[in-house]
Amino acid sequence: MDSNPGAAADDGRTVAEVGEFGVIDLVRAAIGDNPHILLGSGDDAAHISTKDGTYLVSTDLLVENRHFRRDWSSPYDIGRKAAACNLSDINAMGGVATALTIGLGAPADLPVSWAVEMTRGFESECGHVGAHIVGGDVTASDVIILAVTAMGDAVRPVLRSGALPGDVVAYAGRLGLAAAGFAALSRGFRSPKAAVEAHRVPHPPYAAGPQAAGAGATAMTDISDGLIADLGHIADASGVAVDLDSSAFEISEPIQAVSSALGADALTFMLNGGDDYALVATFSSQATLPDGWTRIGVASEGSGVTVDGAIYDGPAGHEHWR
Amino acid sequence: MDSNPGAAADDGRTVAEVGEFGVIDLVRAAIGDNPHILLGSGDDAAHISTKDGTYLVSTDLLVENRHFRRDWSSPYDIGRKAAACNLSDINAMGGVATALTIGLGAPADLPVSWAVEMTRGFESECGHVGAHIVGGDVTASDVIILAVTAMGDAVRPVLRSGALPGDVVAYAGRLGLAAAGFAALSRGFRSPKAAVEAHRVPHPPYAAGPQAAGAGATAMTDISDGLIADLGHIADASGVAVDLDSSAFEISEPIQAVSSALGADALTFMLNGGDDYALVATFSSQATLPDGWTRIGVASEGSGVTVDGAIYDGPAGHEHWR
Repeated sequence: MDSNPGAAADDGRTVAEVGEFGVIDLVRAAIGDNPHILLGSGDDAAHISTKDGTYLVSTDLLVENRHFRRDWSSPYDIGRKAAACNLSDINAMGGVATALTIGLGAPADLPVSWAVEMTRGFESECGHVGAHIVGGDVTASDVIILAVTAMGDAVRPVLRSGALPGDVVAYAGRLGLAAAGFAALSRGFRSPKAAVEAHRVPHPPYAAGPQAAGAGATAMTDISDGLIADLGHIADASGVAVDLDSSAFEISEPIQAVSSALGADALTFMLNGGDDYALVATFSSQATLPDGWTRIGVASEGSGVTVDGAIYDGPAGHEHWR
Repeated sequence: MDSNPGAAADDGRTVAEVGEFGVIDLVRAAIGDNPHILLGSGDDAAHISTKDGTYLVSTDLLVENRHFRRDWSSPYDIGRKAAACNLSDINAMGGVATALTIGLGAPADLPVSWAVEMTRGFESECGHVGAHIVGGDVTASDVIILAVTAMGDAVRPVLRSGALPGDVVAYAGRLGLAAAGFAALSRGFRSPKAAVEAHRVPHPPYAAGPQAAGAGATAMTDISDGLIADLGHIADASGVAVDLDSSAFEISEPIQAVSSALGADALTFMLNGGDDYALVATFSSQATLPDGWTRIGVASEGSGVTVDGAIYDGPAGHEHWR
């Protein structure tokens, strides 16, 4: 390695000061090249060559009271959500997940039935794409930890870096519903049901990823941190600007209801809310968008993501250690 | 699924009451079949088919103050150890790891340099087999969490279930050195250096796994919980008994030194100590053992693992939640 990221990190800063993406950048700089890595970290999944083929792989780490709460969600729903966010990473590459591993950290007093129900929810969600758990690990920990790795196949992996000026920007799936549900739960509400349920268990548009790949999507990612934040990764990786048209977003009734009840802006839920695991992709302007995809903007020369031509002034996307 | 493991687990028992392997059994029962799983959980790694080939995958979850301590080990050594125990799982199948993912849970006040140094140690260990980190995740947690998944290739995966009566039992690598180091550290000693270093960073015999596969090993596993405990998995999976010959074990000087200093039994470190990631395998009595493999016993009709014909009466193997 030519670089010396250790020196750059030796200034004593903490992970909270550097932030999630800063840590990822510094860690990535400490990793060398590998002939097996057709496509490494920095996309939703890595694309790996084997002695006889290729596969996609992605990993997520979920920690109790940060990514889920036992008093808000059943173990079955927590298992479904843990599977969904990992299946979504493979979906976001235009692939189909086939195999997942799960590492379970469990407090000594956790009822075994919790682990079994979580596993059943996990397997149930995997069933939406025909994937299964193929291995795991169980260890003791103070809070529940779910460490998930998903592997899958893709005919043509769709990266974040392929968007071109002039491309159409479109999304598939739900936007803002989980964030509205989280906002409602945080304020002690237990409704609207559709939003609260969406926070507990996302419904990623699993068919939409491979469909977009088949329709020639030039770039794609899933939305876990918020549309603007995640679309920003496509804009950065592709070297384009993206402008969204706020009038293209149809605000659903549950989001409207939460907005009214909490005095929050409905569009902000859709633009900055995470955890619905919708997909956002770019397509050539000549391409026909597959069913379920909604056009919401265009890519152009430049950088950054704007809404109606201006920086969107809502709360920032999700960041850990805040 | 025909079975109903949820009902079996609904008796309110905790994970501590059921134990690590009990939890794994109950969780495994909740998982269905999958055409992509050539070989599922229950071995050191799963063997998965892709659209165009196959690969091995295994996962481990390491939690601060349970699997490692910041005051005992440098971040570089902790990274090496986290990689080693996962590379060992692929080694134990007779395979070679090519790609690993790592999920890092990090307290807000963790210096970024810790994450970078850990990553460098991890990559360094991966370099022993030519593997690299291909993806990861970073999230906030109260203690450091390292969730590692290793993937690799095998020409002929060696399972735990292939041992036959009459087979020779042999091991490769170190036995008991890490356990002796742990015992020394636990009592406040900082020596002997070889043992303490072995606890901090294991040295799995990476060449020995593929060599054993090439030499026709009938069954193989790595030793993470102790020779008797892990050999018990081969005996159970293969439906054979194994008897070890205590005179076949050469007790090294550092283990002898720790035993004398602590008044502990030296052979017990070798028979019950984990974390050296040695390999134990069975071979046909006609096979020539590869270099580095030491014959320590024989398999026969029956069940269970004995030493010199009797149940070994040392402390039990490693178990979480104690």
